[in-house]
Amino acid sequence: MKTIAGSITAPQGFLAQGVEAAIKKADRKDVAIIYSTRKCNAAGVFTTNKVRAACIDINLAHLQDGQAQAIVVNSGNANACTGKQGQEDALAMATAVADLLNISPQDVLVASTGVIGVKMPMDRIGKGIQAAAASLSETGGPNAAQAIMTTDLINKEIAVEVVIGGKTVRIGAIAKGSGMIHPNMATMLGFITTDAMISSDCLAKMLRDSCDRSFNMVSVDRDTSTNDMLLILANGLAGNPVIDDAKSEDYRVFKEALDYVNVSLAKMVARDGEGATRAIEVQVINADSYDTARVIARSITTSNLTKAAVFGADANWGRILAAAGYSGADFDPQRVDIYLGLEKMAEDGMGLVFDEERALEELKKDPVLIKVDLKSGGHNATAWGCDLTYDYVKINGSYRT
Amino acid sequence: MKTIAGSITAPQGFLAQGVEAAIKKADRKDVAIIYSTRKCNAAGVFTTNKVRAACIDINLAHLQDGQAQAIVVNSGNANACTGKQGQEDALAMATAVADLLNISPQDVLVASTGVIGVKMPMDRIGKGIQAAAASLSETGGPNAAQAIMTTDLINKEIAVEVVIGGKTVRIGAIAKGSGMIHPNMATMLGFITTDAMISSDCLAKMLRDSCDRSFNMVSVDRDTSTNDMLLILANGLAGNPVIDDAKSEDYRVFKEALDYVNVSLAKMVARDGEGATRAIEVQVINADSYDTARVIARSITTSNLTKAAVFGADANWGRILAAAGYSGADFDPQRVDIYLGLEKMAEDGMGLVFDEERALEELKKDPVLIKVDLKSGGHNATAWGCDLTYDYVKINGSYRT
Repeated sequence: MKTIAGSITAPQGFLAQGVEAAIKKADRKDVAIIYSTRKCNAAGVFTTNKVRAACIDINLAHLQDGQAQAIVVNSGNANACTGKQGQEDALAMATAVADLLNISPQDVLVASTGVIGVKMPMDRIGKGIQAAAASLSETGGPNAAQAIMTTDLINKEIAVEVVIGGKTVRIGAIAKGSGMIHPNMATMLGFITTDAMISSDCLAKMLRDSCDRSFNMVSVDRDTSTNDMLLILANGLAGNPVIDDAKSEDYRVFKEALDYVNVSLAKMVARDGEGATRAIEVQVINADSYDTARVIARSITTSNLTKAAVFGADANWGRILAAAGYSGADFDPQRVDIYLGLEKMAEDGMGLVFDEERALEELKKDPVLIKVDLKSGGHNATAWGCDLTYDYVKINGSYRT
Repeated sequence: MKTIAGSITAPQGFLAQGVEAAIKKADRKDVAIIYSTRKCNAAGVFTTNKVRAACIDINLAHLQDGQAQAIVVNSGNANACTGKQGQEDALAMATAVADLLNISPQDVLVASTGVIGVKMPMDRIGKGIQAAAASLSETGGPNAAQAIMTTDLINKEIAVEVVIGGKTVRIGAIAKGSGMIHPNMATMLGFITTDAMISSDCLAKMLRDSCDRSFNMVSVDRDTSTNDMLLILANGLAGNPVIDDAKSEDYRVFKEALDYVNVSLAKMVARDGEGATRAIEVQVINADSYDTARVIARSITTSNLTKAAVFGADANWGRILAAAGYSGADFDPQRVDIYLGLEKMAEDGMGLVFDEERALEELKKDPVLIKVDLKSGGHNATAWGCDLTYDYVKINGSYRT
């Protein structure tokens, strides 16, 4: 596997574009379309929030046949908590794209992100969709990546290449997410394209599994969004032998590449967390089970006290152990070793005399690496987050106004 | 029931003191003793964190007979994650108090709060215990309340009086807590005294139930401490007919007074949350069950996004509904009405056109009242929290150093 330039238009047969439609502030792109010249096998994972945007339900319906050909996205308005009107608006977005691209509305997926509870400006969105559809291009990926951003500072793109059955297969992806980031069986917005030939069933299983160890291990603020989604479109143009067996070597190779893509984007989301000055990577190792490792890693990345201590470069390892303790996972606190980067802070649940200077150095790295060794089994998990800063408070004290 | 002046020394037969022992910074009290001239029936609830301080285990052992006569507390050092030495130190504190007051070590309860993972300065603590024991007094309550504070800005005290079986019964209490506040079946530190005659069994049940609807509904930062505890001592000096039946009218009257004490202190803790400029009270009403109401109320008080929006006085009700949505509780988002104080923001899960000025006024009140009407049953719950501010980040970016 190797990384290559580009993102969602790197795989064969994919076009994209992002345009300004005056939904966000001036001079910012806010409507994007991703389109495959050929109908794709497709899959998605979605937010588990009981309160969910209209587009989630539409996508669940549209993905029932495991196929899709285009994705339309707007930023600046989440179209969540907007009732029947919101459903009609989301459907109207799919229909507008379908009409312009001469495909079935059933094959269009819809995503929205932005403020909750505000009616969609459908006239402007309609114009944006027209402009994006008219200028779809093989070089439109970066524009699309920009058009899905809200408080993100950096656009998040990646593309990789693997060889499967002698054929070169590409995977491209973009994502957004900066606040209200605590995915649960889903993600902020992530869109993945591939020219691989792969069955819808394999795609759905692989996406779910891969998401669980990438986006679902990211938290910025423990707030699970109403609009989280991760979509993948596979148009088969690479001409590889079809991947339709989850136990095959081809499946494994493709999954490894997809994991790389998702983990890379997940890390970018963590690093671009609202107000963040540094990313945090938490590795929990030698746990009794993967779930134990996972739950503890997640708990530490979501501890406000730990996050604030990282911001202040305060080597307060007791907060790390306390966050493990209240995670709900079962483990023996008296066996736990804790490292900040290379510096061992605690052994068997007790503090060591450590070098404050070296601990400070580790806390100034980006990402800050926290390692928790449970010394009781062979399972590991990694989670990603970011520090809690003045700017997080500032951004979210005045997001809407 | 009426509130009266004083706190833990208001009930008959209780003495207390708080002194400076140089565990915290200069000029701050940090060792306290609460003592009853007569042996008490006693009960406690404790943190559910897997990582817990030595004093928790000692208290569980010392409370097995349902009796105690003194409590010794230090602030500035949590004596958590301190291994075998920590256990010995906690036990040494109980023994020192027992020797000085001529009671059994088994009847002394121990509490610590402060930094985690640092060895206790037992020489200074020993001197503090001597000084506090030597100056125990009926007017020492406020000193004790000060001596248990860490980042608290305000000492938290209350006393009430009820008549039971023709006898005047008093309840006094002090509490501390400002950060690492997200109790779970327990609390930060809370100490309650009463001269009521009440059985240990009734006391234990009542304390647990009362704690669940008071301290356990407070969150400052979603971080459950390693040292949380709530203790009650009842010395029986009021001479009321013994309360030994959880179904009796006397039990109900005393429980009502205890609830008032605990809810009052819980609110003080929320308002004094680290860096807080305003308290938040979340009322979830008309739920299918108490648990549904409780889980949603807790989820909203712990949402960083909601807390930051309150700090910025941004009427971002969508975050409130989103926090309800990811709480895990089962409810119909399309029936939910949301109020900010008197101002209705959303109806049937959808935004209303609201008066920004009036919403802003509600957001500047202290506490800010958030009401969520599920319109589906008859159960209500209230939770308390505070806003998320620059100062929270500041305090916790440099707590240890």
